[in-house]
Amino acid sequence: MERVYLDHNATAPLRPEAREAMRAAMDLVGNPSSVHAEGRAAKGVVERARIQVAGLLGCAPGDVIFTSGATEAASLAIPEDASVSSAGIEHDAVLSWVHKDGADLTPLLDVDRNGVLTGTAQGGCFEERIWDDIVALQAANSETGVMQDTLKHAQAFWALKRDVKVLVDAVQALGKVPFSFADTGADLVMASAHKLGGPKGVGALIVKHGIDVKARIRGGGQEMGRRSGTENVIGIAGFGAAAEAAARDVASGRWEEIAELRKILENALAADAKTTIFVGKDAPRLPNTLCLATPGWKGEAQVIQMDLAGFAISAGSACSSGKVKASTVLQAMGYDELTASSAIRVSLGLETTKEQVMRFAQTWLDKEKKFRARAA
Amino acid sequence: MERVYLDHNATAPLRPEAREAMRAAMDLVGNPSSVHAEGRAAKGVVERARIQVAGLLGCAPGDVIFTSGATEAASLAIPEDASVSSAGIEHDAVLSWVHKDGADLTPLLDVDRNGVLTGTAQGGCFEERIWDDIVALQAANSETGVMQDTLKHAQAFWALKRDVKVLVDAVQALGKVPFSFADTGADLVMASAHKLGGPKGVGALIVKHGIDVKARIRGGGQEMGRRSGTENVIGIAGFGAAAEAAARDVASGRWEEIAELRKILENALAADAKTTIFVGKDAPRLPNTLCLATPGWKGEAQVIQMDLAGFAISAGSACSSGKVKASTVLQAMGYDELTASSAIRVSLGLETTKEQVMRFAQTWLDKEKKFRARAA
Repeated sequence: MERVYLDHNATAPLRPEAREAMRAAMDLVGNPSSVHAEGRAAKGVVERARIQVAGLLGCAPGDVIFTSGATEAASLAIPEDASVSSAGIEHDAVLSWVHKDGADLTPLLDVDRNGVLTGTAQGGCFEERIWDDIVALQAANSETGVMQDTLKHAQAFWALKRDVKVLVDAVQALGKVPFSFADTGADLVMASAHKLGGPKGVGALIVKHGIDVKARIRGGGQEMGRRSGTENVIGIAGFGAAAEAAARDVASGRWEEIAELRKILENALAADAKTTIFVGKDAPRLPNTLCLATPGWKGEAQVIQMDLAGFAISAGSACSSGKVKASTVLQAMGYDELTASSAIRVSLGLETTKEQVMRFAQTWLDKEKKFRARAA
Repeated sequence: MERVYLDHNATAPLRPEAREAMRAAMDLVGNPSSVHAEGRAAKGVVERARIQVAGLLGCAPGDVIFTSGATEAASLAIPEDASVSSAGIEHDAVLSWVHKDGADLTPLLDVDRNGVLTGTAQGGCFEERIWDDIVALQAANSETGVMQDTLKHAQAFWALKRDVKVLVDAVQALGKVPFSFADTGADLVMASAHKLGGPKGVGALIVKHGIDVKARIRGGGQEMGRRSGTENVIGIAGFGAAAEAAARDVASGRWEEIAELRKILENALAADAKTTIFVGKDAPRLPNTLCLATPGWKGEAQVIQMDLAGFAISAGSACSSGKVKASTVLQAMGYDELTASSAIRVSLGLETTKEQVMRFAQTWLDKEKKFRARAA
């Protein structure tokens, strides 16, 4: 039977538009830094993609620095000697700069049971972090899909420290919900191509005009001296085309259909799985993401059982070389380890069908019943 | 008339094998960090490419860290606080870490008129640099094609300081001449996909077993924790396939045919262009590279004139966002600025034909004659 891919937050299939743009870019021989016609043609592809990516984000093309992904974008946004405020729900690409010395000693911002920041300008833990240079805010969480009002939180920080830089991780939100750079409060935004139908290994850091970033990869001076190295022309072409197509799909409301499928799936599961927690259900969420925790039934075991049954889902984030452990995101949200280690993420995509989600529900519920029988 | 691309050292056309591998990788939806079947398939592509790249370099697959290119590889090889010995002929990706604070004050290693290091363990400027952590050595220069005996130079450094780390820039040598990691004296090697027929924006740092590198891009812990970020699966697939094809072409002697074409071209030009200097002609050189300096005739002007006539060549290195200035490589070799600013590089590829080089010679000599007439 045909496999069902429900792990779009880990990475999404390449969009046809991206594939075609990449195929066309393969025919271009030039180096974008070369002055001859071949070089200028390659540069044209990069600059066209820059406009397309800027269009998705609602920023100026000159604000876009192409990188090898959002992880590199985070490292470019955060200077080695900067101190960073963030909650424990952030991605490792951000948290690794918060816990710089490997020690988990830095106090983190508090979040509620939905993963939403609880601090305010009037009090709470925000005030403990007023010495920080950067505050990292997530537009949407990869594991739960829960969205944050980054502008509101940014304003609370600015009230405490006018010059704190706001870094928004927009990786999961981009291409699924409307996004506008100016409305996020961000000075810096991390973006990734492969979450929205572009290729893996391509991303961008968006830098507000007037904000300085210090190059971490130095050399030939590409990307206005902010990120050296010959550009990934083929990948960038794919990113641009995917960004344009993603913006179109967000505008046309296609994700509302996916939200409907998610609702159907959620209702089907909730009807039978009485001990299962639907994490973040009451918070504003991405239209495609469903996070389930069934205490006692290891997320890792569920992923493997479902994989053998033909379904691709995940437990926690996909990163970190296949390591599977209790979700640190859920633990940050106040769930105990037993619950956090039982979490799975089901993330739908634009090509997901009702037949697929119903087949998933049936298969998963069947296994859940067996789990309960074993546990009883 | 069909354009003639003679700028292969800037970037080479994508090999058919790379294109096919990339096309196949486009069909894989998974994230290499995911544990399900789709994730494992994507990981398989990355690991296959690792074996192919290791095959070209003669190292163990576990020594290969995939990066977004050789520039990132240099930044990964060189810790922020390291001091680096190098000659002025190195690429900006290395030199930017030598001249760390933007000041060109660090003493550089001396090279002779061919760009070959002149220091020895017995004396010369090597001894001035014995406090350095890293010595950067170029296997072959991108502008002149001149090759260095990196092992000999590494041994001279080791005689002065046993624990100096040797970083070899193999970018231009790989895929054009035989290369064996063990025979270079290198602890670290920079490699780039797009110089040997892979895609732009993909490369590797080769790290000898037992040598530590400190991650500069941190996050999910990919590449054994040495370089985080979701892998550029499509690009890495292309790198692997190109590396395998490049190794085959080096072994089968195809570059000897290119060396013959270079000789034909060089002889044709030398017969008429009496004031032109053939830089590095007497040194061991890459089979495909020809560096010409015609004092008084700006390299930039030559590139533009030849571009309009249908030929892609370069003046100096392709990097640095199209900036064209006097070749710092030639200046490091002792040429005056007038000569250095008149240098052009003609670099042949495996698809270059005799008809193309003869057409180039005729067109260039025609323009050279006009230059001399104007100058007279």
